[in-house]
Amino acid sequence: MKLLEERIVKDGQVRPGNIIKVDSFLNHQLDVNLLDEIGKEFYRIYKDDGINKILTIEASGIAIACMTARYFDVPVVFAKKAKSKNLDGEVFTSTVHSFTYGKDYDITLAKKFLGPEDRVLILDDFMAVGKAMHGLLDVCEQAGATVCGIGITIEKGFQPGGDSLRAAGYKLTSLAIVEGVDDEGNIIFRPQEG
Amino acid sequence: MKLLEERIVKDGQVRPGNIIKVDSFLNHQLDVNLLDEIGKEFYRIYKDDGINKILTIEASGIAIACMTARYFDVPVVFAKKAKSKNLDGEVFTSTVHSFTYGKDYDITLAKKFLGPEDRVLILDDFMAVGKAMHGLLDVCEQAGATVCGIGITIEKGFQPGGDSLRAAGYKLTSLAIVEGVDDEGNIIFRPQEG
Repeated sequence: MKLLEERIVKDGQVRPGNIIKVDSFLNHQLDVNLLDEIGKEFYRIYKDDGINKILTIEASGIAIACMTARYFDVPVVFAKKAKSKNLDGEVFTSTVHSFTYGKDYDITLAKKFLGPEDRVLILDDFMAVGKAMHGLLDVCEQAGATVCGIGITIEKGFQPGGDSLRAAGYKLTSLAIVEGVDDEGNIIFRPQEG
Repeated sequence: MKLLEERIVKDGQVRPGNIIKVDSFLNHQLDVNLLDEIGKEFYRIYKDDGINKILTIEASGIAIACMTARYFDVPVVFAKKAKSKNLDGEVFTSTVHSFTYGKDYDITLAKKFLGPEDRVLILDDFMAVGKAMHGLLDVCEQAGATVCGIGITIEKGFQPGGDSLRAAGYKLTSLAIVEGVDDEGNIIFRPQEG
């Protein structure tokens, strides 16, 4: 997605340790016009896949999921990272290792919000090693839901998450795939059609 | 907001301990059409207040903030509840006590995203005792930003958060104020104009 790549070049940074900083528009401050374009693009890609629910994980994923769900006119459900006192009833759980925070955490999702009747588009802002995504896929499998697509805003192409899920047969689309930086510090994107 | 009150009656529950369950449309599963109407209503209320930024806190607040920001055409910035390795640079912090989770936590916001030039609308899904809101107000004060309004989706009218902030002079609007339940278990709302 040209608009997103241009924005990453303009306002993003790739830091030592392969950290991609896009906090001015994607995951701390949010540019809702850009998010709206992202939602429109996910709709273009997945509109014929019979999606009836969008699944994401708190926190930044919620913004992308909501802006995309407007186009699909379907509900969003988001997995929670902490167990709330108020999250009663039966829940699906899966354990995820976070490299960002350096620890394991459980994600939870109320069973009443995901089931065999659901055709799910999973959305998230980032894909690196793919640990959080594996947690969401695990939850979908427990629910008997069909995963029709995975939409990632920015994929770290130099980490294995995206390519291993494509190899496993998922219809995974990343709107920008960052491969690294060249010697002049320019961000290198994987060429994609569209 | 009539539409919201009707939805709370239809799909919400008030539980022992004064827990209001609205997880089927507001804070676990999200009804984006309802969120869009909520955003439109906040815009109607605050459109003449010169808002140039919407501030919220992860996680559910992000959904409401994004859907509202579309109408204002301004960026959203959300305070984070956990310190990320990737959140470098100078940050504002404030300590918040959560009754839901039964512990204190720090909220953080990068200094570069909030300053004296900002006229802020603070949005959140719930207001009870108001601890999280006091953290956000504290961050705004540290930043020198002007708080032009506070928009709450559901206020627990039987808890002091909302009324104490109104008494302090804030332009605080709650789209639904739940006062409790009557003897037949019907939810009682505080009468409001509009």
